[in-house]
Amino acid sequence: MALLFHTTPARLPIWQKLFAEAGEPFIAGEDAVTDPAEVTAIACWTPPDLSRYPNLRLVLSVGAGVDHLPALPQGVALARTLAPGIEAMVRDWVVMATLMLHRDMPLYIDQAGRGEWRTHPVRLSTSRRVGIMGMGRIGGLVAGSLQALGFDVAGLSRTGSTGTVPMFAASQRDAFLARSDLLICLLPLTPETRGILNAETLAKLPAGAGLIHAGRGAHLDAQALRAALDAGHLSAAMLDVTDPEPLPTEHWIWSDPRIIVTPHIAAQTDALEGARHALTVMQALRQGAPIPGLVDQARGY
Amino acid sequence: MALLFHTTPARLPIWQKLFAEAGEPFIAGEDAVTDPAEVTAIACWTPPDLSRYPNLRLVLSVGAGVDHLPALPQGVALARTLAPGIEAMVRDWVVMATLMLHRDMPLYIDQAGRGEWRTHPVRLSTSRRVGIMGMGRIGGLVAGSLQALGFDVAGLSRTGSTGTVPMFAASQRDAFLARSDLLICLLPLTPETRGILNAETLAKLPAGAGLIHAGRGAHLDAQALRAALDAGHLSAAMLDVTDPEPLPTEHWIWSDPRIIVTPHIAAQTDALEGARHALTVMQALRQGAPIPGLVDQARGY
Repeated sequence: MALLFHTTPARLPIWQKLFAEAGEPFIAGEDAVTDPAEVTAIACWTPPDLSRYPNLRLVLSVGAGVDHLPALPQGVALARTLAPGIEAMVRDWVVMATLMLHRDMPLYIDQAGRGEWRTHPVRLSTSRRVGIMGMGRIGGLVAGSLQALGFDVAGLSRTGSTGTVPMFAASQRDAFLARSDLLICLLPLTPETRGILNAETLAKLPAGAGLIHAGRGAHLDAQALRAALDAGHLSAAMLDVTDPEPLPTEHWIWSDPRIIVTPHIAAQTDALEGARHALTVMQALRQGAPIPGLVDQARGY
Repeated sequence: MALLFHTTPARLPIWQKLFAEAGEPFIAGEDAVTDPAEVTAIACWTPPDLSRYPNLRLVLSVGAGVDHLPALPQGVALARTLAPGIEAMVRDWVVMATLMLHRDMPLYIDQAGRGEWRTHPVRLSTSRRVGIMGMGRIGGLVAGSLQALGFDVAGLSRTGSTGTVPMFAASQRDAFLARSDLLICLLPLTPETRGILNAETLAKLPAGAGLIHAGRGAHLDAQALRAALDAGHLSAAMLDVTDPEPLPTEHWIWSDPRIIVTPHIAAQTDALEGARHALTVMQALRQGAPIPGLVDQARGY
């Protein structure tokens, strides 16, 4: 019963040390496998050929997302990495991006490129309605931070209410969109959410709305976003995810002044935090305890 | 006993209506003055010739700042506009700017201009020490918001401690600077603070530090900032204030990728909030009550 490490080699020393200290069996990459039957779990972003491991019980994504993984063989569980750092990092990016749209930074950055000193009316955060699609742990953190800054925050969730944030159910999606001056997407990518930010959805936002996207590139129909910006219906967007990634140098999004792109850096898993989570997962697996970060593979998150 | 309105004409209807409803004497501009002896207070950004008004008792700045005003005649009080909106607006800009430096936005915006998808290590807010120069009401708001996001915040103040924020006294300025990975300037402009962000001060910041400046342009020696950036000692800066303002189109700051400038828009006084404050000031003046926003003219703020 051992974990096979199959990810960024730069992280190996940190993982190796932590597992050695805990006395937890650890295999440092496929080249180090002597008996494939010993491998019960694999930590990876892109998995190896899983058919080689007859006793595989679990695949652990080394990131928060699992949508990049293929369907796993029957009986193999899937977990994602939970690390306090990941959630705080995404929160920081989303709060920053929301404030940047609230305070017209795409406009000011575009003006600065021309050396243009021109002011626009400043609005109070209390006058802005923020809508969050995807009210999981990160959505809850983001909602709390934006409420503390005075924004009028609501969430959309199929799994019901979260603390002090007014929640809209899936059946109330149109009403939710109609009140989202700043729409934040934190959804997981599933067959149901693929392409969810499309012409129809964007048209339901109030005039002048902005989009903050930290979900997955495939949630967004970029041509629909461009059309909504061209029509003046949307004002601006902050994207941390694109389709494809990396976004090619010649892609029109880079040069659209209404859109600011960051290269999928809302969060990175800290090597030590990731290793700690993996260790907890292996200990839970050994003890038959609930696996932290276990993914419902039918639901997709 | 009347207030002379001597500011942006666009705001006149709002002030006029509010003063009329309150039955408070109001003179709509110098052209409307019939007897200069009636004028006891003047609301302005740039004052008129004050020697015309023998019974003047108070000048009210229609913004939060008063450093642009000349010395007033003996016996004339000075007040600045306090409006909840101003403080929240500055807080929003400063929190945004701090997050933008924390998350390397100058770097990512520069890369985006070249269509370059390249990631840099993400740091946790808990690993960043923020230093706030100027711990007045706005400084306190900013400190609270940044602490809630996990930043390690300290303040520098000549007037002592503020709530839960660790405070450094003026005599501990070097120690304060040495721990400020992100330095925020919210100081009022006075003879003591003019040029305070100079080569010597910036050299005391830790390597890689960033500057967030929402004080006044004259606090900052821009050439010293450029030298510190060129030397790699500072990483980036967010400036809402410059010297001069407007910043001329051909100024080097506009095209320096390490500096992001906004055109003095951290806050704007909402016309109604400004008028309400002026009304409160006039009522206090009439009743001999403490004047809200009264400025210590010897101290300069």
